[in-house]
Amino acid sequence: MRHFLTTEDWEQDELQSILDRAKALKAGASSSALAGKSVALVFFNPSLRTRTSFDIGIAQLGGQGVVLDARAGTWPMEFEDGVVMNGDAEEHVVEAARVLSRYVDMIAIRCFPKFENWQTEREDPLISTFARHASVPIVNMETIVHPCQELAMMMALQEQHGRVENKTFLLTWVPHPKPLNTAVANSAILMASKFGMNVRMLVPDEVYRLDERYMAAAQASCQAHGTSFDLMTDVEAAYSGVDAVYAKSWGALPFYGQWADEAPYRAKGRDFMVDDAKMALTNAATISHCLPMRRNVKIADSVVDSPAFLGIEEAENRLHVQKAMLEALARDMDTHS
Amino acid sequence: MRHFLTTEDWEQDELQSILDRAKALKAGASSSALAGKSVALVFFNPSLRTRTSFDIGIAQLGGQGVVLDARAGTWPMEFEDGVVMNGDAEEHVVEAARVLSRYVDMIAIRCFPKFENWQTEREDPLISTFARHASVPIVNMETIVHPCQELAMMMALQEQHGRVENKTFLLTWVPHPKPLNTAVANSAILMASKFGMNVRMLVPDEVYRLDERYMAAAQASCQAHGTSFDLMTDVEAAYSGVDAVYAKSWGALPFYGQWADEAPYRAKGRDFMVDDAKMALTNAATISHCLPMRRNVKIADSVVDSPAFLGIEEAENRLHVQKAMLEALARDMDTHS
Amino acid sequence: MRHFLTTEDWEQDELQSILDRAKALKAGASSSALAGKSVALVFFNPSLRTRTSFDIGIAQLGGQGVVLDARAGTWPMEFEDGVVMNGDAEEHVVEAARVLSRYVDMIAIRCFPKFENWQTEREDPLISTFARHASVPIVNMETIVHPCQELAMMMALQEQHGRVENKTFLLTWVPHPKPLNTAVANSAILMASKFGMNVRMLVPDEVYRLDERYMAAAQASCQAHGTSFDLMTDVEAAYSGVDAVYAKSWGALPFYGQWADEAPYRAKGRDFMVDDAKMALTNAATISHCLPMRRNVKIADSVVDSPAFLGIEEAENRLHVQKAMLEALARDMDTHS
Repeated sequence: MRHFLTTEDWEQDELQSILDRAKALKAGASSSALAGKSVALVFFNPSLRTRTSFDIGIAQLGGQGVVLDARAGTWPMEFEDGVVMNGDAEEHVVEAARVLSRYVDMIAIRCFPKFENWQTEREDPLISTFARHASVPIVNMETIVHPCQELAMMMALQEQHGRVENKTFLLTWVPHPKPLNTAVANSAILMASKFGMNVRMLVPDEVYRLDERYMAAAQASCQAHGTSFDLMTDVEAAYSGVDAVYAKSWGALPFYGQWADEAPYRAKGRDFMVDDAKMALTNAATISHCLPMRRNVKIADSVVDSPAFLGIEEAENRLHVQKAMLEALARDMDTHS
Repeated sequence: MRHFLTTEDWEQDELQSILDRAKALKAGASSSALAGKSVALVFFNPSLRTRTSFDIGIAQLGGQGVVLDARAGTWPMEFEDGVVMNGDAEEHVVEAARVLSRYVDMIAIRCFPKFENWQTEREDPLISTFARHASVPIVNMETIVHPCQELAMMMALQEQHGRVENKTFLLTWVPHPKPLNTAVANSAILMASKFGMNVRMLVPDEVYRLDERYMAAAQASCQAHGTSFDLMTDVEAAYSGVDAVYAKSWGALPFYGQWADEAPYRAKGRDFMVDDAKMALTNAATISHCLPMRRNVKIADSVVDSPAFLGIEEAENRLHVQKAMLEALARDMDTHS
Repeated sequence: MRHFLTTEDWEQDELQSILDRAKALKAGASSSALAGKSVALVFFNPSLRTRTSFDIGIAQLGGQGVVLDARAGTWPMEFEDGVVMNGDAEEHVVEAARVLSRYVDMIAIRCFPKFENWQTEREDPLISTFARHASVPIVNMETIVHPCQELAMMMALQEQHGRVENKTFLLTWVPHPKPLNTAVANSAILMASKFGMNVRMLVPDEVYRLDERYMAAAQASCQAHGTSFDLMTDVEAAYSGVDAVYAKSWGALPFYGQWADEAPYRAKGRDFMVDDAKMALTNAATISHCLPMRRNVKIADSVVDSPAFLGIEEAENRLHVQKAMLEALARDMDTHS
């Protein structure tokens, strides 16, 4: 039985099949792949697009989504084995996974890291434990990666650029008042490299390197495709001649849990907002960002409101790629049952 | 494309058509006006009746409602143009409106004023911004007016009184421990005046005048119908001979954001609760109140539990008028697509 | 019109019919008993299994569930008659019950006691007031009893033991950091006694007696069946030779609202966790617990992960028994309309 936890577990051609099907669904194809099936949507963190697009997509496939808000509506969960549960957690993921598996046909989970201990959190323990104990497919709605966003991003890039192989993709760190999850940044380089793009990462300082797991995976993909992978700190050089810009802010991993010390490094990126001057250095690049997005902090209004901005299209694509992915999981379940 | 933001944008005969259709739906007519369509229900404030009646009404029309709790489930939103978004708001309404428009066929919004700055809030900025940037109809589930409640109120009045033209409608301020939103009060005078009723407003002091925008609109409607409009502070005179009483509490606009100073004026209305003695002054009037309603603070038990009380019928009518209104919006969309 | 407030209102053979139907549903029988009907699911307390199993079960019966979160999504409610509502409560249950009855076909409610005043709370005032004023069936999703859990527990026992008459059922108090609701404990002895089992209760001290209402009801059932009912404090004697163990923690009623004074009595039960040594004293007993359940505090991992543990099966059964119970209520409504 197959989960959708990270695109690392899926081959490029499998992901391309999902993208092709998503384009057909966007063009109006209908499907009843989830008829009579239900999907639990478990949120440990807030959501606008994810909740709406999953709920509606599932209904459009003939299924029923059940939203579970694990912050307000339920209780904290334990995910380590053998623990004496005399703390906050009232329930172990083992039981939650087993019981939900009796009620629903798939379980989708959003659970961000707590920004406390990256050495633990880099193992994505909650969703991994769910996947180990559930008897139905688990779908990642954003943890330390965001594979649904990756699919939506790549679909928008392909819609705009056609074949993306050998085009150049720039992931640029952008300012934000708070240190954010690295999930979308990890995902952006995983996906761009997997689909044969030259990948550049622009950061204010090398402390903003992503976890080696993702750096190495992206480099390996680039090597396999014969493309380049570069970590850069020079803004002009990084933007120069690129075809696609992707903006994202994140916290520097060495300061995980001690964010005050990160401030001087963050300050080095104070001019990293995407603006017209930077975009003028590109090869008439497209620009995107997952939403939500702080205007005039991460990207200037003039860029967001220009035709180069793919963010709305990418957000719409979430609906279509998720439907295509759920279809693929449902087909896989039927094959194995 | 038509929104349902305020009854000020709709003619009396258009609203009457909605009421007539609502009566047919209440009598058992069925409809699949929203088959295959979805509606986002975005709540920035809590709700019992609105959430339930919209969700069920949409399902009864064959559609799918998606509830988005913008307090707990999502994040604060910016609605001003050109802002550098380095405060609390993670997302601009522009993006939220555009993206939701890609996912759903209509967007219904509840967003009360924050009671901080009436000069800003009287422009109803959040829902107005949504309406400007969405490409689907926007429905008001209560902001600084409550047009769905207006329809439900008028339907209950017509059910009980038949034609309401030239009957006398009294909106009475009633006590409440806290200063409340003026939305339902604004709506009550807009609707009663639009449908040809004589309108009286009873307040403890002239500081409880509603915003001039609504006072003037109601006076203009009365003038057009040849009916009277009176702001009164004398309880006996106000109740005398009226056909319909509507009770509501609200905060005095001059003290917006500085409520401590309102206390002495509020105290002048300490005896304004609707009770049997006051009702005895009327022309065997009906009495109603939107819900929730504090018993024995706003209206005495003996009045609430009498046959004159239309509050439960009015609450039920929410379901029917909303279905009829959503049908009208869906029909309008089909005409224009 | 029939409610499902407590199994005390239902005869054993009526409950057995629900269990038999639940087994048929579990085996794959389909039903459209709620086609075109809607059910409000009102939660004053958090939930994972209850919310999911009701929502999915209702959809599987062709109906629509509407979840109302009365903590976050709505407001506190008053349930006493004649109160001057100038406190926190914005709405009286009378209005909520009447209005919801206009919108939906059934109302299911979860409302735990507040652990403040057992003399008031033992009357289960909120759900009782709802039942008195609603014109549709009310379903108990856990208040001071948990009848849906009772059905699921008995179904799991029957699946495992066949006929349970004259088998011996042990309800054992187990440790927990906090004093918990007595609902499931009350329910366990009500149901086991009603179905003809010998019932033992093992507690650290007699202060953990349950409310006399439930003690007396269980004793009366045992007397009618010719079975035994024993309150015990000796662990070895209590476990000796039993066929089914049910673990639950609860707060001692004499210390209701003054929990600090309960601590020394709670300490007497520090070794009451269910473990292999205790299970070895039984007649190869099954062991169960409603979920959530703190591992290694209430029950040792080795017991939870053994074949004797019925907790997951019992949790799955919630779905089936609730569907069968809702079917029975819908059939009863049709008979009387």
